[in-house]
Amino acid sequence: MSEKIQIIEVGPRDGLQNEKKPIPLGMKYRFVENLLGAGIDNIEVSSFVRADRIPQLSDAAELFQMIYNNKLAGNFSALIPNVKGLNRAIECRANRFAVFTASSETFNKKNINSTIEESLHLIGEVLAEAKKTSTSVRGYVSTAFGCPYEGKTKGNEDKVIEICEKLFDWGVDEISIGDTIGVGNPNQVKSLIKRLEKKWDLSRFAMHFHDTYSRALGNVMTSIEYGIRKFDSSAGGLGGCPYAHGATGNLATEDLVHLLHDLGFETGVDLYKLKNSSSEIFEFLGKTSSSKVHHAIGDSCGK
Amino acid sequence: MSEKIQIIEVGPRDGLQNEKKPIPLGMKYRFVENLLGAGIDNIEVSSFVRADRIPQLSDAAELFQMIYNNKLAGNFSALIPNVKGLNRAIECRANRFAVFTASSETFNKKNINSTIEESLHLIGEVLAEAKKTSTSVRGYVSTAFGCPYEGKTKGNEDKVIEICEKLFDWGVDEISIGDTIGVGNPNQVKSLIKRLEKKWDLSRFAMHFHDTYSRALGNVMTSIEYGIRKFDSSAGGLGGCPYAHGATGNLATEDLVHLLHDLGFETGVDLYKLKNSSSEIFEFLGKTSSSKVHHAIGDSCGK
Repeated sequence: MSEKIQIIEVGPRDGLQNEKKPIPLGMKYRFVENLLGAGIDNIEVSSFVRADRIPQLSDAAELFQMIYNNKLAGNFSALIPNVKGLNRAIECRANRFAVFTASSETFNKKNINSTIEESLHLIGEVLAEAKKTSTSVRGYVSTAFGCPYEGKTKGNEDKVIEICEKLFDWGVDEISIGDTIGVGNPNQVKSLIKRLEKKWDLSRFAMHFHDTYSRALGNVMTSIEYGIRKFDSSAGGLGGCPYAHGATGNLATEDLVHLLHDLGFETGVDLYKLKNSSSEIFEFLGKTSSSKVHHAIGDSCGK
Repeated sequence: MSEKIQIIEVGPRDGLQNEKKPIPLGMKYRFVENLLGAGIDNIEVSSFVRADRIPQLSDAAELFQMIYNNKLAGNFSALIPNVKGLNRAIECRANRFAVFTASSETFNKKNINSTIEESLHLIGEVLAEAKKTSTSVRGYVSTAFGCPYEGKTKGNEDKVIEICEKLFDWGVDEISIGDTIGVGNPNQVKSLIKRLEKKWDLSRFAMHFHDTYSRALGNVMTSIEYGIRKFDSSAGGLGGCPYAHGATGNLATEDLVHLLHDLGFETGVDLYKLKNSSSEIFEFLGKTSSSKVHHAIGDSCGK
């Protein structure tokens, strides 16, 4: 049997959050349902940040409730900014929580209006509460390979390690290392993984690459070579890069799955069902997928 | 000083050859001129295959003559199918020749209507004549990592080595290893390079990746790691994949240059001038570039 690689689908949350046009709740629900049908069982569904900050995700509670009521089976995570958000997530039965910070001070300041220290303090509070529920928690560390404001800075790798230490100490189960603006290169990826490996089991990490400069799959390949077996991605490549106008953001799940299968890994995902999972969303938004595989594989029913 | 990586720009030939709408000669000339202005001095300009096979490149003689008359300085190669094509290329002063075959029998049969053996025979004739001119010759070996008809076959790597042997024996100076349909993965790339290295100096090879499935830069990264320092690419990613409708083909030169600079390599290329070099062509074709870097870097005059 071939080795398994785990995909964490972030399309419904990370992919949609910057879309201006309000997507109907039912359409979001069908997207989640389609993803499950394609064999993806780890899905970041929505976020409990303030509705005025991310209006697109203001229906998070309803969406989680629908998933629960309809007995969909899977790991459905919610992005949690603070204890208030956590309580709302608990109320509507999200079964996985995700907390977030970044290794760049400027990014944290501009993105969530707090210092790294302040954001870690909030995370600490959330984790203390979350523990009582025995729900698993993932932590995001953004700007791990470069920041839209500070660029690539010398001490950034140290900062990433330092944040990971705190998150694990406080009970985070898994950390997703985010290349927020897609500027990472394989030398950086290798260097960081080798440092993570010295302190922790690599099974506790996922890599979250963006394809802004076409580097996502290359960085996936390097990550696999150095022992990573979990990756975040977004169906159809949903989600632009808010820091570079007209540019793409998230690595497309199709591109990831196509490569993983070719390398002989098992993902449990049906590539054609995956391709179709986001069709309704793209049509509604009047956009086309940024995924090259999405366009190249055609509509064949084969694999 | 940082290490240099050589880029062989194939946009004017490989990028344009499948475009139906006839591009005016003057526009092609300006494209070549712009590429030179952006710092690219190795350019595959056109092809001397029969005009009815590739109508878009039927003005090859005129284009080479314009380049010569206007004293543009650079390495300008012409694709040569046979001795007749060679004589035309010599007549209009192409200063580099390129011959081509593929490692897949079916591909050769469908693409140039000959067996590998027959195509090698034609190449042998061309090389015997070309030697008299002391012009350097590059050889293309297509389908090196997979064939649109045969897929990935067991003996393909052996076939690639065997063809390289013949080409070098007959006096080819450099070989470009082509991933015609973009299905190569880093395991294949590493495996082939390690075999090439046992027999030849790797400076005699260029890698020619297609980005059909978003893997081109990943395969570039692996190639660099294993010692390759020459890459083919196409400005703006010009050139679709004729084997998958709506899919992209050539690796975009912008994506390549952006990565190489980030890795600390020198290319001599100005990324913004490069981005603008193909604008007139894309506008005329009513298309947008498939290069993610092309869209992500904006129009800044910085680097």
